Amino acid sequence: MAEILSAYKQLEEKFHKISTLSGAAAILGWDNAVMMPAGGADARAEQLATLGVISHEMLCDLQVSDLLDEAEDQPQNLSAWQLANLREMRRDWKHATAVSSDLVEALSKATSKCEMIWRQAREDNDFESLRNSLEEVVRLTKIQADVKSEAFQLSPYDALLDQYEPGCSEAQIDILFDDLEEFLPPILQQVLDRQEGATAAVAPKGPFDIEKQRKLGLHFMEKLGFDFNRGRLDISHHPLTGGIPDDVRLTTRYDEADFTQSLMGTLHETGHALYEQNLPLKWRGQPVGLARGMALHESQSLLVEMQLSRSEAFLEYAYPLLEDVFGDKSEAWSFENIKKLYHRVERGLIRVDADEVTYPLHVILRYRLEKQLLSGDLPVAQLPQAWNDGMQQLLGVRPQTDSMGCLQDIHWPSGAIGYFPTYTLGALSAAQFFTAANEKLPELTQDVKTGRFEKLTNWMADNIHQSASFETTDEVLKRVTGRPLSTEAFKKHLIQRYLKD
Amino acid sequence: MAEILSAYKQLEEKFHKISTLSGAAAILGWDNAVMMPAGGADARAEQLATLGVISHEMLCDLQVSDLLDEAEDQPQNLSAWQLANLREMRRDWKHATAVSSDLVEALSKATSKCEMIWRQAREDNDFESLRNSLEEVVRLTKIQADVKSEAFQLSPYDALLDQYEPGCSEAQIDILFDDLEEFLPPILQQVLDRQEGATAAVAPKGPFDIEKQRKLGLHFMEKLGFDFNRGRLDISHHPLTGGIPDDVRLTTRYDEADFTQSLMGTLHETGHALYEQNLPLKWRGQPVGLARGMALHESQSLLVEMQLSRSEAFLEYAYPLLEDVFGDKSEAWSFENIKKLYHRVERGLIRVDADEVTYPLHVILRYRLEKQLLSGDLPVAQLPQAWNDGMQQLLGVRPQTDSMGCLQDIHWPSGAIGYFPTYTLGALSAAQFFTAANEKLPELTQDVKTGRFEKLTNWMADNIHQSASFETTDEVLKRVTGRPLSTEAFKKHLIQRYLKD
Repeated sequence: MAEILSAYKQLEEKFHKISTLSGAAAILGWDNAVMMPAGGADARAEQLATLGVISHEMLCDLQVSDLLDEAEDQPQNLSAWQLANLREMRRDWKHATAVSSDLVEALSKATSKCEMIWRQAREDNDFESLRNSLEEVVRLTKIQADVKSEAFQLSPYDALLDQYEPGCSEAQIDILFDDLEEFLPPILQQVLDRQEGATAAVAPKGPFDIEKQRKLGLHFMEKLGFDFNRGRLDISHHPLTGGIPDDVRLTTRYDEADFTQSLMGTLHETGHALYEQNLPLKWRGQPVGLARGMALHESQSLLVEMQLSRSEAFLEYAYPLLEDVFGDKSEAWSFENIKKLYHRVERGLIRVDADEVTYPLHVILRYRLEKQLLSGDLPVAQLPQAWNDGMQQLLGVRPQTDSMGCLQDIHWPSGAIGYFPTYTLGALSAAQFFTAANEKLPELTQDVKTGRFEKLTNWMADNIHQSASFETTDEVLKRVTGRPLSTEAFKKHLIQRYLKD
Repeated sequence: MAEILSAYKQLEEKFHKISTLSGAAAILGWDNAVMMPAGGADARAEQLATLGVISHEMLCDLQVSDLLDEAEDQPQNLSAWQLANLREMRRDWKHATAVSSDLVEALSKATSKCEMIWRQAREDNDFESLRNSLEEVVRLTKIQADVKSEAFQLSPYDALLDQYEPGCSEAQIDILFDDLEEFLPPILQQVLDRQEGATAAVAPKGPFDIEKQRKLGLHFMEKLGFDFNRGRLDISHHPLTGGIPDDVRLTTRYDEADFTQSLMGTLHETGHALYEQNLPLKWRGQPVGLARGMALHESQSLLVEMQLSRSEAFLEYAYPLLEDVFGDKSEAWSFENIKKLYHRVERGLIRVDADEVTYPLHVILRYRLEKQLLSGDLPVAQLPQAWNDGMQQLLGVRPQTDSMGCLQDIHWPSGAIGYFPTYTLGALSAAQFFTAANEKLPELTQDVKTGRFEKLTNWMADNIHQSASFETTDEVLKRVTGRPLSTEAFKKHLIQRYLKD
């Protein structure tokens, strides 16, 4: 006789199936960016849309609603992880059912169109050509924010935030960002003054063989514990970490004139990849088994890229390798020079090229503007002006073109409002985690100098990755670092690295 | 007011969705063979199984059955292509609904297991370790053949054949294969005697740089009209043509010691790829828009590989390129020697390495044996003995191990009974098509000598590829060559190439 499955177990089966479809879509998404010839784009878009619709239908199925109610009525039968899983299922269900199929479809079409127009508009430096379609995306995103606001009993902006970083709120961000906005501009000036006063860094001479860059990247990935039996490194236009926990697809891009970009890109993505590969096996395919959110994800990539890989200890370990692979005996390959290169700060216009001192200012600008776009206080037409004024005020530089200004990022054209803050929340968390790691592992600096990362990555896996979505990001931070997220560790880190070392 | 769609139009929508899912699965299948790290295998198997189950459920949906009945009741509203599409929909539906979900699942599990055991058994030369699981696959395949026999009103073997080459029958194959079985052995002896009497071919000296091999392959693909905007060339353990018509994923494998294998593999797969790329745009995603069957597919790959690329005219064009890329001024790179290499015949043990004279004998053996396996006349336990006796009788050589004998092919362990004949039906068709092409295009030989293939490939596209599944294979052959499939053109071709030229 077949056993009658409990409501909870039935839900596990359904969510496992949905997760399997997402996994298929993740591999196809990677293929899009890495392998697909241009002519395959339409068919691929249709494949991904169809998988999305099927998943959405499965999630919005009335039976799921009944099963959720039933399982929630019997919490006493469930373990703590099962309860957390049920909580995450309910969250997914709420996000899916809050929006009507019509709105999902309208948003999907509007963002696809807007992304396409954006690519051209950025190339042509033509904001006007983007305006109408961006207005439409903002209009639909507002509707989405409103219905999710209702469903989650959150403010519209917080409802959007919840899609990327569950539990995060405007109130929390405002405190952190106000603090940074006060702290960073004067510090930035001090850092630049100090930089000005020292000998300038010498740029090492290329070209740097791409196969050598690749091998070096693979070497660092291996050292950091990336499992090549469950993942690979390839090339794409924008570096990304895709795929699924058992098959993590990491990419970078190579520039023959500059090896640091591919190397730091690879190290950044390796941080993301370690999080995915170390998620708990037992909860594969369940909502609670997924990475917590984008801020925590970014904290892991920045912990590896910024906290670890740009540290003096790491550079001490790495610079002989760099010199060995690319170098000559010139000044450019000295430890001091390599350090200067990796710690260079500037008032730049482009977020993705920004150093860690100025990066939060780029994010704060976008955060302020996207809230105004959402509330309607800032009409899309006035975005270029507001952007340029904001850059002037926050970073002290003014873009001469919109391509170097408000047209540089794909996020808004693709409907991602509420995403930008997670970059800086990640940077703050990374500093806080790394501080805690150094307290727990007093031998860490010495280990890093000799290329041993196992204790650090095990600590990350045990303390952060393995908890998946069991806890909230705040709970993880408090458990691991003993305090809620603050700017303190980050500020200390900047002062130490850029004003003292 | 929304228009109420006709039953036929509703079916088109449903089959389009099913096709989109198959397309996603096709890309994931390619990724399996080309990209996936070993650790991703379980998750991937689950993704493919889930996509398969969803497609199967969509096809077996009761509504589809009603819509098919309704559309078939109103044939007067449909164009000839729509009627053909409806016929193919019904065929797909019959294949899907004939077997129960339990049987589908049992077969899927049994073949997955048997394939895995087969890999080890072949490596270990241990037929006994395979016996039980192969018996189970044969048992389930028999049940499948019986239920499809009932549904299609065909003999059990013909019902299996219909999965790979619709409309093909044992009766037709028997006539063709009996003829070949009589013709080939004495011809083979004559060819070997003639080869023996001539100076032996000199093997060109490697190693042959893999990047050079790859570039040469890409050059030939381009010359043959492969559209790189809708496809790519990669590496896999076994050469294959995967993906979808707008994104054809072709693979080959490289051996530094032997450039002919990768080159001929690439040319063979290019023949398959041209068929896919030239399928009619208008019928993308519909059953009638798919390639007709495996025999016709193989005819296109063999037309390119065997009929065209091993012809004297092609070698005249190609040998200076080969010499240029790999060669020295030695005898090995002379036209006469290259020709000898490409026309070498031998009594070999391995099908995939066989030349075109002996290949059909390998296929005939498998055809005879698989019919006996299906009928029960040949117990699995007696397969090694029957195989070795058959090789002795047909090819005059006897395998010393089962690895070189009945363990060499994956087909039976994967449940593919009824597939082998399509290789030789393809070879016969290729000869018949190429004869017709030469009649229609009197300048063809001259074109080929100078590396111009456009007229030939256009002719193939217009006459064969564009008809997709509109006609049966027999209808295509009659329309294009003026006669049903026979052994005549193939026999003439062998005599000309191997006993006269």
